[in-house]
Amino acid sequence: MSDDDQELGITESKSHNTGEWYAEVVQKAGLADYGPEGMSGFIVTRPRAYAVWERLQGFLDAKFKDTGVQNAYFPLFIPESYLEREKDIVEGFDPEVAWVTEAGNKELEERLAVRPTSESIITPYISQWVRSHRDLPLRVNQWCSVVRWEATETKPFFRTKEFLWQEGHTAHATHEGAWEETMTRLDQYASVYEDLLAMPVLKGQKPDHDKFPGAETTTTVEALMPDGKSVQAGTSHHLGQSFAEAFDITFSDEDEEERIAHTTSWGLSWRALGALIMTHSDEQGLVLPPGVAPEQVVVVPIWQEDTKDEVLEYAEGVADDLDDAGIRVELDDRDGRNPGFKFNEHELNGVPLRIEIGPHEVEDGELTLVHRPDGESVVEDREGVVATVQDHFDEVYAKLYATAEETLDGAVREADDRADILGTLGQHGGYVTAPWCGDEACEEPIKEPMAAEIVMVPFEDDDPLAEADHGETCAICDDDAERTAYFAKSY
Amino acid sequence: MSDDDQELGITESKSHNTGEWYAEVVQKAGLADYGPEGMSGFIVTRPRAYAVWERLQGFLDAKFKDTGVQNAYFPLFIPESYLEREKDIVEGFDPEVAWVTEAGNKELEERLAVRPTSESIITPYISQWVRSHRDLPLRVNQWCSVVRWEATETKPFFRTKEFLWQEGHTAHATHEGAWEETMTRLDQYASVYEDLLAMPVLKGQKPDHDKFPGAETTTTVEALMPDGKSVQAGTSHHLGQSFAEAFDITFSDEDEEERIAHTTSWGLSWRALGALIMTHSDEQGLVLPPGVAPEQVVVVPIWQEDTKDEVLEYAEGVADDLDDAGIRVELDDRDGRNPGFKFNEHELNGVPLRIEIGPHEVEDGELTLVHRPDGESVVEDREGVVATVQDHFDEVYAKLYATAEETLDGAVREADDRADILGTLGQHGGYVTAPWCGDEACEEPIKEPMAAEIVMVPFEDDDPLAEADHGETCAICDDDAERTAYFAKSY
Repeated sequence: MSDDDQELGITESKSHNTGEWYAEVVQKAGLADYGPEGMSGFIVTRPRAYAVWERLQGFLDAKFKDTGVQNAYFPLFIPESYLEREKDIVEGFDPEVAWVTEAGNKELEERLAVRPTSESIITPYISQWVRSHRDLPLRVNQWCSVVRWEATETKPFFRTKEFLWQEGHTAHATHEGAWEETMTRLDQYASVYEDLLAMPVLKGQKPDHDKFPGAETTTTVEALMPDGKSVQAGTSHHLGQSFAEAFDITFSDEDEEERIAHTTSWGLSWRALGALIMTHSDEQGLVLPPGVAPEQVVVVPIWQEDTKDEVLEYAEGVADDLDDAGIRVELDDRDGRNPGFKFNEHELNGVPLRIEIGPHEVEDGELTLVHRPDGESVVEDREGVVATVQDHFDEVYAKLYATAEETLDGAVREADDRADILGTLGQHGGYVTAPWCGDEACEEPIKEPMAAEIVMVPFEDDDPLAEADHGETCAICDDDAERTAYFAKSY
Repeated sequence: MSDDDQELGITESKSHNTGEWYAEVVQKAGLADYGPEGMSGFIVTRPRAYAVWERLQGFLDAKFKDTGVQNAYFPLFIPESYLEREKDIVEGFDPEVAWVTEAGNKELEERLAVRPTSESIITPYISQWVRSHRDLPLRVNQWCSVVRWEATETKPFFRTKEFLWQEGHTAHATHEGAWEETMTRLDQYASVYEDLLAMPVLKGQKPDHDKFPGAETTTTVEALMPDGKSVQAGTSHHLGQSFAEAFDITFSDEDEEERIAHTTSWGLSWRALGALIMTHSDEQGLVLPPGVAPEQVVVVPIWQEDTKDEVLEYAEGVADDLDDAGIRVELDDRDGRNPGFKFNEHELNGVPLRIEIGPHEVEDGELTLVHRPDGESVVEDREGVVATVQDHFDEVYAKLYATAEETLDGAVREADDRADILGTLGQHGGYVTAPWCGDEACEEPIKEPMAAEIVMVPFEDDDPLAEADHGETCAICDDDAERTAYFAKSY
């Protein structure tokens, strides 16, 4: 390996130094840079990562629009007095808020919060827009950035002081309508992970003590990272009537009675990019599913001087066919770089499929296709290249999903007392399920020694312990168990 | 007109009270609301306006991507010390900056500017990314919001303390490369206005005293508003080497010589929405060209009890055909609203085309199409409705463009001394062209009495006065004229 290759390649071990390995992939695959001096915890999202975000946006935004959501844009700043109108919000977010105090060369009369989330400024407008039951349900969403001044260790995409996300806000006539909305969005988030990012997720709800400030129920999709930690990958909140009461969203129902609405909010952030990068990538670099890869396939012609013309012409024809079919293809015909260098570079950058074309392929009317995730190499006919490549995209996706699913399936273990929970988490990481009484105090004996917590509780319908008379007792306090708790370390 | 209609309709006169009329259209067509108390100058962009912005984004973003631009995302905040590194930027923007001084419950060591524009944070990263001439040209763009604390009167979309825009930033090996880039983007901005928004624009450059801070040349597209004022509708800046020097963008050229890059930046904001609304709309409300309208066509069935079923069925068939063809169609089959009410509402909302369907249309296998801009009504065959509707979209666009073009053509007048300039501007508004020596001092005698200024100077190749030996003298000072100045009042 030359010095160049050394500098280009990943040097950290994914299994031994997951954090350092992740940072190296993010940097060397050109995904993000760290913020400038004096702005630790901020990142610059470079074009290759932003392109993945755009595809995720497109996928999710289309689902939103198909299900009655309209995009809008609300101010970046929230007056302090607005933030204070819902007491849980202000308590929950105040420690993390960045404040604008001066503007236009003047001290402001009232501090303005840079939005940490926008319930406090969106809900008052929803209140103005809703008059009658005919105005409901009302659904708005915005794609924007928010700022939360995280004190703990930051990490590109996983935990940054500013992050890109979407936040949806809805109002409904009934509690049930809001609940359906909450679950519709959670299912759409699960679909982003499963159908687009090739990552299976767990769906459930947060324990009451870890809900969104002011929420009645916070639902979550949780994704397992390769270091055995769980990442909260998207949340959808049933806000009950707390925000509607604080901001006065009332409507006249069909009998002209004045009623209070029920609201929801739901958000998915670029943390999805972090989870994606960490899940599939390896010690050759980034691995991406074809649906979000900026370049889906790279064509690498391999020639000697005497075969150059015919190989290049053949390769160009292949690339043109793919391009015409709307496939994101790159023809890497650079002189002065040998094929091995090119292979390494495209592997580092996470191009899902490579097509190698040398004199043999030209002679036989064939192509050699190589899958990024496992290096599997397959010879296929040149004819019908578009359909063939689409099939291989499906295979690459399926491989990624299967591997991640196997990991997840093997990472959920049962335990029934404190020592067992701690021991299993300590040895294996992943999720440890245990009967739980529902009391926050019973999380403490796990949280305190090993910083693991209850990241999820299955929905009632999925949880046998939510039924009466099962006879199980809490793994910590021996009171009657009310739910199954999923303990895990988390990002 | 019932009270309801009164409340729904526009009451202000476009020609007599343009400002009030504009505010009324923005509000009643559901485009924007004013910011909350304590945040004057901010607006809430409601879904119908945001949908127009999304279409504009899609149109322009596709052009960017076709011409080598990659999207990225840079931090919202800029450390004060970064802002200070390019002296013109800090002088130009300092009075308008909003400052974050506290975050995470602590006073910050260094104030952070909420970005007023991002040269000062993007250029240092471009500097890191550029090593060799092979890295050039480098082009990044971001879609985001920026904050400029405008002291003067704010107006939705035209002048707001926070606005949405895109800002592109590029680096080039040569001065000429940067110039080509500058013009490519200006032409794309002109295309947004002309091809998408049906608004002719003037292209030229700003006088030197009104350039972007630090720029070598600021080019502009200027659009004429119905009150005779010009709006700076998009700007593209050749930044020369000033930013590259301040932030150290150097590269090794083909001979391994170290060179300083040439940079550009260019931005188009939601001011385009303001200009769009103001140009085409009328005293019935909003008027939009079909390319950006959230609903392109509304089908209004008109029935009596005995014809209801057949009329509705026919109307649904028409709407389905249009929907299947990807046309944004709404079927307004609401009970309890008469056709006149519906017509008014869709006119207010700027739906470009209305299809009326009553028993006669059903009987004859026809449709009645009504153009929003001028109310022209045409009967067409039901068969081939998709192609027919597309043709009428083209006609509506052409009508809007022709009207705006006629207005613009008639609004450029010549003058050759100060009294003539002032008199013509005072009487007609619009643009007054006059020979100009190039000195800022000669703008003052026009600016001082009537707040008109030189909004544009044609490009050298388009300006006979840019040639030597024409014998013309400056309309103000009688020195030799160097360029033709376009005087106008402006937003």
